[in-house]
Amino acid sequence: MNKPLRIAVAGLGTVGGGVASVLLTRGKELEERAGRTLDLVGVSARDKSKNRAANVSKIAWENDACALAKSDADVIVELIGGEEGIAYDLVKSALLAKKHVVTANKALLAYHGAELAALAEENNVALKFEAAAAGGIPIVKALRESLIAYGIDSVRGILNGTCNYILTQMEATGQSFADVLKDAQKLGYAEADPTLDVGGGDTAHKLAVLSALAFGVTPNLKSMKIEGIEHITPDDIRFAREFGYRIKLLGLARKRGDHIDQRVQPAMVKLATPLADVEGPFNAVVANAGEAGPFFFEGRGAGEAPTAGAVIADLVDIARGSFGAPFGRPAKRLTRNDTQPGPRSCAFYLRFEVLDVPGVLAEIAGRLSESEVSIESMIQRGRAPGEPVAIVMITHESVETSVASALKAIAASAKVVAKPCMIPMESR
Amino acid sequence: MNKPLRIAVAGLGTVGGGVASVLLTRGKELEERAGRTLDLVGVSARDKSKNRAANVSKIAWENDACALAKSDADVIVELIGGEEGIAYDLVKSALLAKKHVVTANKALLAYHGAELAALAEENNVALKFEAAAAGGIPIVKALRESLIAYGIDSVRGILNGTCNYILTQMEATGQSFADVLKDAQKLGYAEADPTLDVGGGDTAHKLAVLSALAFGVTPNLKSMKIEGIEHITPDDIRFAREFGYRIKLLGLARKRGDHIDQRVQPAMVKLATPLADVEGPFNAVVANAGEAGPFFFEGRGAGEAPTAGAVIADLVDIARGSFGAPFGRPAKRLTRNDTQPGPRSCAFYLRFEVLDVPGVLAEIAGRLSESEVSIESMIQRGRAPGEPVAIVMITHESVETSVASALKAIAASAKVVAKPCMIPMESR
Repeated sequence: MNKPLRIAVAGLGTVGGGVASVLLTRGKELEERAGRTLDLVGVSARDKSKNRAANVSKIAWENDACALAKSDADVIVELIGGEEGIAYDLVKSALLAKKHVVTANKALLAYHGAELAALAEENNVALKFEAAAAGGIPIVKALRESLIAYGIDSVRGILNGTCNYILTQMEATGQSFADVLKDAQKLGYAEADPTLDVGGGDTAHKLAVLSALAFGVTPNLKSMKIEGIEHITPDDIRFAREFGYRIKLLGLARKRGDHIDQRVQPAMVKLATPLADVEGPFNAVVANAGEAGPFFFEGRGAGEAPTAGAVIADLVDIARGSFGAPFGRPAKRLTRNDTQPGPRSCAFYLRFEVLDVPGVLAEIAGRLSESEVSIESMIQRGRAPGEPVAIVMITHESVETSVASALKAIAASAKVVAKPCMIPMESR
Repeated sequence: MNKPLRIAVAGLGTVGGGVASVLLTRGKELEERAGRTLDLVGVSARDKSKNRAANVSKIAWENDACALAKSDADVIVELIGGEEGIAYDLVKSALLAKKHVVTANKALLAYHGAELAALAEENNVALKFEAAAAGGIPIVKALRESLIAYGIDSVRGILNGTCNYILTQMEATGQSFADVLKDAQKLGYAEADPTLDVGGGDTAHKLAVLSALAFGVTPNLKSMKIEGIEHITPDDIRFAREFGYRIKLLGLARKRGDHIDQRVQPAMVKLATPLADVEGPFNAVVANAGEAGPFFFEGRGAGEAPTAGAVIADLVDIARGSFGAPFGRPAKRLTRNDTQPGPRSCAFYLRFEVLDVPGVLAEIAGRLSESEVSIESMIQRGRAPGEPVAIVMITHESVETSVASALKAIAASAKVVAKPCMIPMESR
């Protein structure tokens, strides 16, 4: 019989509690798969007295999570979160102490992934993070171990369940972003401070992780364009549908010559394609794997069981001795990808809020034409008398910067009452 | 530097040729991932003189594939196919000679999976088969290594690209099964003898593999109900759409108490759910992973690159020393699941071809009522005068055997001109 794998969990929130529960109640099944027992030997959290679903009363408790790095555990599971502070200190000191690390911390990996991966490799221990991107979907393992023979051309994903829930609800109810967000906060689907989710930052963290796995680049937020969903209106969602599209917040990474284009932005996704049908808090990823074609993965992106399940899978891999370079390639061979994506060429959805006065359409059309942006289809729909009118267009394929400069000129017009909205159309 | 992994490939058809090509042309990328080189050291195929895309002229050639088991290769890749004969002999003798085996042979695994897995474990070598189910989709790895924390309740998949292509084309063109099959054969999407594909046998082989991984049962075709798509008519496909469904050939495995229900059959899948949107030669799998919820995987199920890519991923795992029990649990702990599934309770789609004479609907409704099958909705549509009429119904949830006995009585009526058709409605 192989000796037990000794596991310490730092952070006993939703996910940490779930991991502890599975370790304490499903030991037999996990042993059958791992060939050894997985023993929970230490835990740490902020408040020892808190009532928890998992009964950890018999497990050694540390008030200071960083003390776990000095314990006799073989693996530290970091579920504290945040890119600096305790999480960073704990992971780094654990790796230096030659302990394996499993983490769900995308922010930590987005900021320090390359450094920590190198440290894991030098110390010949695992750094695993299936739970850090797309929750329960085994996309980290798929990119690291499965879709490797022909390289990856692009990865596109719905990576933030909060944003996808908000957009789904805006479509279902016709309510504004602000109203749906308020409800989502009440239901626990959005944080009290929702900025990281709705501003695209969380998606960016996850995209940095997926890009590193797919393309062998160091995780790097500075190379990304990041845009959130705060400015999406019920009108945009309705018009999208009329054009046969649905608005989704996507994380997009594409190979363009030697450069990897990385963006987080709302995009128009064609109805009846897999990404368009991803509803509510679900996440999904499309990976275009060269000649092997597109692969699509969908599942729950957050919540106790999906995320804890991903952590458990990493732990069983470690128990079986199955781990290699954290990003699938040696950390020292990861390449830097520092520059922001250049202007893209695609069709765009444009929305203008204008006064209902003569000449306004001529002015908009003129400005677009000056920038060599041509229009493929248009909807203009009146509202109540005296209210501004929405003019909505889909352009032919156009250069992003040309569209942006036309929009800047249009925004300056006295007939235009709000900042124009511009959303790229994603081809499948 | 670790020593190279020595690989011999038996069978140089589409997939074998693809594997050889990747090994010969993408060595650097694979080495980076595996930490050692993957060397192609031997090949075997029926015809040495055949022109092949992969240039294997400098690789040691064996006319007798079984001789590879006695070569100095570390891994044998079996791509010959068939559940008996050379494939079985080669895999068995390779495992006995303590060589790792990678295979895409679902028939071999469906008939001899438990025996071969036990042999691999006894000899402490790998038996890997990502390419054996759903082609390029990494579902074997996902079920074996990722979706393990909460157990699996059900696995449902579109596992045969030929059938899915035929059904997609029948819907697109309105042509009959026989006509579309003929075209598919011309295009190379269907074999000259299509029985194994269209009769459901190939789906059954793959389902046996997925069931073993998901539920820890020995692969066993005898425990399955297997039905093909030969009897599906363009009418069925049209009516399905009117009811809001699409017909797909599914492999279904479900936990029912201690028993695993395994079936291959055409089923009505609700439009706008992931399985309904799987088109043409694509494959897809929905795995319900307990509290972690449903996971959906889609990708190319056949063809050179997707399948060769799956073989390459297995080879890189072996090169990294990452392998355990072939079915994720020790072979000796796989449980037998010998009995056929009992009658299921669900709604059914029924189609009757009847003479356009008085009393026919009353007779059908009467028979169904006698068997306690109640009707949820119905379409009757006339054809040209004198031609038989189609009566189509969706039942409320009913016991399969009750519906079948009503259909048997109805089929005996002089007013019914063809065997009634019965297709279960799949809830998501």
